[in-house]
Amino acid sequence: MGLFTKDIKTMDDLFVHQLQDIYYAEKQLVKALPTMADRATNPELKQGFLDHLDQTKTHVSRLEQVFKLHGATVKAVDCPAIDGIINEANETAGEVEDKAVLDAALINAAQAAEHYEITRYGSLVAWAKQLGRNDCASILQETLDEEKATDQKLTALAEKKINARAVA
Amino acid sequence: MGLFTKDIKTMDDLFVHQLQDIYYAEKQLVKALPTMADRATNPELKQGFLDHLDQTKTHVSRLEQVFKLHGATVKAVDCPAIDGIINEANETAGEVEDKAVLDAALINAAQAAEHYEITRYGSLVAWAKQLGRNDCASILQETLDEEKATDQKLTALAEKKINARAVA
Repeated sequence: MGLFTKDIKTMDDLFVHQLQDIYYAEKQLVKALPTMADRATNPELKQGFLDHLDQTKTHVSRLEQVFKLHGATVKAVDCPAIDGIINEANETAGEVEDKAVLDAALINAAQAAEHYEITRYGSLVAWAKQLGRNDCASILQETLDEEKATDQKLTALAEKKINARAVA
Repeated sequence: MGLFTKDIKTMDDLFVHQLQDIYYAEKQLVKALPTMADRATNPELKQGFLDHLDQTKTHVSRLEQVFKLHGATVKAVDCPAIDGIINEANETAGEVEDKAVLDAALINAAQAAEHYEITRYGSLVAWAKQLGRNDCASILQETLDEEKATDQKLTALAEKKINARAVA
């Protein structure tokens, strides 16, 4: 987006800008999740990351569908927030020696990404409805529901298995 | 933290590392919130940011209390995630021309920060309990509850007032 002009003039512009931002974020996560799956030692966590990778690819396709429905060009803009979240995940994971502790750190990292997506999709759904785009809102809502479900699954896995093993 | 050594060896180390990360994040938010309040045009949103600034200062003090209770040095480590969230907020806000649309963008930015904190405090509470530090867990839980309440307040304000005005 422009550094010298104010490119976001309407709510519609803000909606499209946010679509471009989360489109970038989802694509970065498609790149990051295989590494997270490789690093995970708990088999359930490893499989969880692989399942979420498939889901994330679907989220990318859904966003492309929303861009088209809304008559906007499919385009990504840099999203410093997700880059920061992924960098932090890599930095922290790189500092962890113990495998069980690493699993706890990986879940924590994945949940930061999930929460980022939950907040962005939450706004996108609300904005789509406000703009009278219930068709876009319902597609975005599907992804939002899946992100929330993934976050809850990760919490359950952390609390029931990973954290206890990491402290043992 | 060390670039050449693996400094996180135990769950306790991960807990302290995460405390240092969120301590940095809260301190960055103490710096960012006055600018957000300045930019906001809706008086309720402006006041909301100022109230949350006071709350954030309390969160900083609570973290210092947890560091001390746990016998760890009060210290911040860089948190690329919150830096990314704040940079993205500034970049997007800088591109918005319309005041009402800017308010919608500011709420969205603030909620990304809230969600980051919710996920981090969520892990910290779980880890503190696992480590047998219920004293630390209950202090961290207080902040977690406040972050969740702030997020809900922002959603209500966006849905009831800000978004409709931004589309009008």
